[in-house]
Amino acid sequence: MQKYLYKKTSKESYTIGVYTTIELLKARPESVIEVILSSKGERNKGIHKIIELCKKNKTPLKYNDNLVGKLTRSDNNYAVAIFKKYSADPTKHDNHLVLIKPSDMGNTGTIIRSMTAFNLTSLIIIKPAVDIFDPKTVRSSMGSLFGIKFRYFDSFEDYLKGFENLSRPRHLYGFDISGKKSLTDIKFEKPYSLIFGNEGEGFVEKIKEQITKSGELVKIPQNENIDSLNLSVAVGIALFKGFTEK
Amino acid sequence: MQKYLYKKTSKESYTIGVYTTIELLKARPESVIEVILSSKGERNKGIHKIIELCKKNKTPLKYNDNLVGKLTRSDNNYAVAIFKKYSADPTKHDNHLVLIKPSDMGNTGTIIRSMTAFNLTSLIIIKPAVDIFDPKTVRSSMGSLFGIKFRYFDSFEDYLKGFENLSRPRHLYGFDISGKKSLTDIKFEKPYSLIFGNEGEGFVEKIKEQITKSGELVKIPQNENIDSLNLSVAVGIALFKGFTEK
Repeated sequence: MQKYLYKKTSKESYTIGVYTTIELLKARPESVIEVILSSKGERNKGIHKIIELCKKNKTPLKYNDNLVGKLTRSDNNYAVAIFKKYSADPTKHDNHLVLIKPSDMGNTGTIIRSMTAFNLTSLIIIKPAVDIFDPKTVRSSMGSLFGIKFRYFDSFEDYLKGFENLSRPRHLYGFDISGKKSLTDIKFEKPYSLIFGNEGEGFVEKIKEQITKSGELVKIPQNENIDSLNLSVAVGIALFKGFTEK
Repeated sequence: MQKYLYKKTSKESYTIGVYTTIELLKARPESVIEVILSSKGERNKGIHKIIELCKKNKTPLKYNDNLVGKLTRSDNNYAVAIFKKYSADPTKHDNHLVLIKPSDMGNTGTIIRSMTAFNLTSLIIIKPAVDIFDPKTVRSSMGSLFGIKFRYFDSFEDYLKGFENLSRPRHLYGFDISGKKSLTDIKFEKPYSLIFGNEGEGFVEKIKEQITKSGELVKIPQNENIDSLNLSVAVGIALFKGFTEK
């Protein structure tokens, strides 16, 4: 049992709950090692869906109420799936969401949910940052994590170098309260990167300079008496704009 | 000390942290009973602001590191303000945000922050629901709570009755994935209520019927493969639309 207690260095992680487990089985069947169910979930419709997907994919399935309880730290979750961590690299042609040093697992999971909702499915994370495979992040993404591409970089500079594309330069949009352009007045040029600083710090000057070299700082119009929006709300609004603009 | 341990039935609550305490002292000085500081915060700029505001408002101020640690459950918070709970009723003329049975304190705090950012400052909450005066909600609102008006109702029906205005009917916009109108295709008519169901359940049929009698169901355009956005993100997008529409 010990082997399933999650650490950042683990080669495996796990889903918590029926909904998230179904998302994993649908999106990444090849990464699933085994599914563990609680007998308490017998009447749950989702459990039947899980059993069906395991049969179809030939995924090992077992019952162990105690283990499900331990891994989910709750009596109200009926399913867990152990999966191998995997990589899924974004490409040069994709639009990217870039999070600089995100530190909150709940926020990051919520953001991944919004990415899926608004069809921007390539995530770049600049370290130090949350672990997207942590069961808590996976959970707050409601399993949306399994449908996105992602890559970590040590610095914003490394990211820019890693995706250099001379034939079709990438447009950078950095979201900052100091931005001169308003979100309502711009049209994103593809391929683009929507870039957000850390909740506490926002952007350091150096990053602002790097962004303005091949893009611009954008402001989400708002009442000026406030500290700023929660990061996941700000990202949601930017992604919505990208999804709905014509 | 016992008397400060927060309960829903308490007549008092408290802020956690320097930023939230400053917001309270600025917005609701008359509700503050006393401010308690930790001597560890000596060099914190915000602490000086707090001391200045307390002097100006003649608010009792004391130092008690141990009590600050207990109330904030952390060693990294330097300020707490005990305050009397108060009421601050929305009016018939205001635009309202209506949350039906919100159950997550973090989400509710984040939503209150977005309300302030987007200048829609009247909140209606249909019970059973989170306690907005819980220190955790206050905290996740970053003190924005102190600038908004709010009122609880036992049912959606009671709310509609309570704000009946024959001379200028209220327009109801209920946000739901089944909505026929898209958020990008409508213009909110004032005074309006933006209505959101609980995270887990959305709207029950009866509420949908009540909304469509004097308004409509609205959909936030999104990829249809997803469960739906996080509540605080969906609300943020709707408020942003209200704030930026011409």
